[in-house]
Amino acid sequence: MDERFITLEYKDDALYLLDQRVLPNEQVTFICKDYREVEFAIRDMVVRGAPAIGAVAAYGVLLAAKELAPIHAKLGRKEFRKELGSACDFLDASRPTAVNLHWALQRMLRRLDGADWKSMDEILDGLKREADAIRSEDIATNKAMSRIGNEIVPPKATILTHCNTGALATAGWGTALGVIKEAFYSGKDIFVYADETRPRLQGARLTAWELTQAGIPSKLIADSVAATLIRDRKIDLVILGGDRVAANGDVCNKIGTFMLSALCKLYGVPFYSVVPVSTIDFSITSGAEIPIEERDASEVTSPTGVPVAPEGMAVYNPAFDVTPHEHITGIITERGIIYPPFDMHIAHLRSEYEGR
Amino acid sequence: MDERFITLEYKDDALYLLDQRVLPNEQVTFICKDYREVEFAIRDMVVRGAPAIGAVAAYGVLLAAKELAPIHAKLGRKEFRKELGSACDFLDASRPTAVNLHWALQRMLRRLDGADWKSMDEILDGLKREADAIRSEDIATNKAMSRIGNEIVPPKATILTHCNTGALATAGWGTALGVIKEAFYSGKDIFVYADETRPRLQGARLTAWELTQAGIPSKLIADSVAATLIRDRKIDLVILGGDRVAANGDVCNKIGTFMLSALCKLYGVPFYSVVPVSTIDFSITSGAEIPIEERDASEVTSPTGVPVAPEGMAVYNPAFDVTPHEHITGIITERGIIYPPFDMHIAHLRSEYEGR
Repeated sequence: MDERFITLEYKDDALYLLDQRVLPNEQVTFICKDYREVEFAIRDMVVRGAPAIGAVAAYGVLLAAKELAPIHAKLGRKEFRKELGSACDFLDASRPTAVNLHWALQRMLRRLDGADWKSMDEILDGLKREADAIRSEDIATNKAMSRIGNEIVPPKATILTHCNTGALATAGWGTALGVIKEAFYSGKDIFVYADETRPRLQGARLTAWELTQAGIPSKLIADSVAATLIRDRKIDLVILGGDRVAANGDVCNKIGTFMLSALCKLYGVPFYSVVPVSTIDFSITSGAEIPIEERDASEVTSPTGVPVAPEGMAVYNPAFDVTPHEHITGIITERGIIYPPFDMHIAHLRSEYEGR
Repeated sequence: MDERFITLEYKDDALYLLDQRVLPNEQVTFICKDYREVEFAIRDMVVRGAPAIGAVAAYGVLLAAKELAPIHAKLGRKEFRKELGSACDFLDASRPTAVNLHWALQRMLRRLDGADWKSMDEILDGLKREADAIRSEDIATNKAMSRIGNEIVPPKATILTHCNTGALATAGWGTALGVIKEAFYSGKDIFVYADETRPRLQGARLTAWELTQAGIPSKLIADSVAATLIRDRKIDLVILGGDRVAANGDVCNKIGTFMLSALCKLYGVPFYSVVPVSTIDFSITSGAEIPIEERDASEVTSPTGVPVAPEGMAVYNPAFDVTPHEHITGIITERGIIYPPFDMHIAHLRSEYEGR
């Protein structure tokens, strides 16, 4: 099955994004003509979702390289490389938690540094190919994870998911929602409860929209409703994404994930995180080291532009939380499902992955 | 300390309510001139909160009695009583979960049936006095619960609360928020985290407003943020209300309460429900017997009138959940704090209460 919408596309020297801030009410294209607009698109969440951010940032590097071409011509390769590095740092700071952003930027710079380019045209061509590869590899990775993940979905299953992890969160298809779609399209009897996912309502705005597009039977719930559904055995399994995974298997994901994991642990409901290997940050030993982005109070106090809290009310608005590996049944990747002991299996994966 | 606002007032043959649907952006008075408007006000949540609904319904009975006075004159006492009973049934159906509504209606009818009234004027005077008594007793009860509840608040405490349980939820002052205010005004070093309380956002709209009015240091959070605060020992205790308490101590309260209780149990954080004895339904043995109101999908899909979900998306929107007594540290009432074993202590309270 293919998607009925395109979330990101590079053409005519610009990056075209489906503006996720106005979905599902409007389908508007947000066009990034330079890397500053890419940085804005990530920061303001025109595009969100760890894998999508990675692919978008890669095209941001390409746009930066195009813009810096005169410097290459005038001041040479070294100065160009320095300026491009600054542009990458600028992009890297747009959102602090997801590791894919950093991973994609590093990969683009490695591509630049790893070959003996003859000309600026060759450089731009190489960077374009690398960004395209990041994008298409992400889709292939998602398809692989979906097939692998589908193995743990029973023939009849009510699945709870959180935030958006579909085509909109990736270069296409999706991670956790990809598994759910794969299960549904493979003929399984699937029912989905989608958490609305306050404060940004990605579940209501985006996941509900993707579920509707795909025709998957589903209901939207306020986040706190999940607790009684889990307790009352109305949920067979929880499948959601991840923004950064530590070497011990701790998963940093959208705020609300930890709450679900604690209830699943308490009531014996299987809990899976679906992430490409690029989301695993082998350099950090536990989730405690992951920086948690705090976002603007207005996300809570004015969710649709209409104030719902008194003026001046203080807000604590963390965008993510960390789920300890003890609460996780398995981490589904394109290389297979990682089960406990996570630290050992992730170390093994690392040696394989970095040995490529 | 007195409140700076009046939430409900009966004067000039009408009931004046502070319209909670438009707070905190506007302070508008909703005037009920007959009992049908009272029913609408309860159903559409112009007024909400179990004790407030009870007091408002009592005045609804008075308005119905006034309207039915011609029937008394023309067809006699028996026919009048029958019609008033129907009006009470109509009011009783406006919201199914809170027990105070039913309790207040029964109390008004008992007052009618319990005396040998000489005239309609005497009846109306008697019902007015009874409604006034329900109202003033509720405020006195709240003040008593606040003093009793303050005993379990440490000199320095970070308190998490859910939904709205302040002056707006009662005839005045408040239940759980009353305890918090009492603790603050008595000089304790109090910080409050207020759950926004989706879907109706009573925490954001009403509790944040009352906290601001009272000058209590506080922050608003999305409901799912509470889980990490509880885990990370950032919360010293949870204090919230209750809409119906079963004879075994199970507490039915705003959706999201169960989630908090499960996390508090898991991480050893004290969890208190503050309710007047009128909220205890001695007739039901456990929370499983409490009907859970399901409300309209639009509360989730269109929280401020602006759609945040695709058209036609199905929604599961329960207004309440049941917290098992095993998760509850204590139930704070005007007769003292009930501790486990709840069934035994509630049975004892019942014999005292009904023996009055």
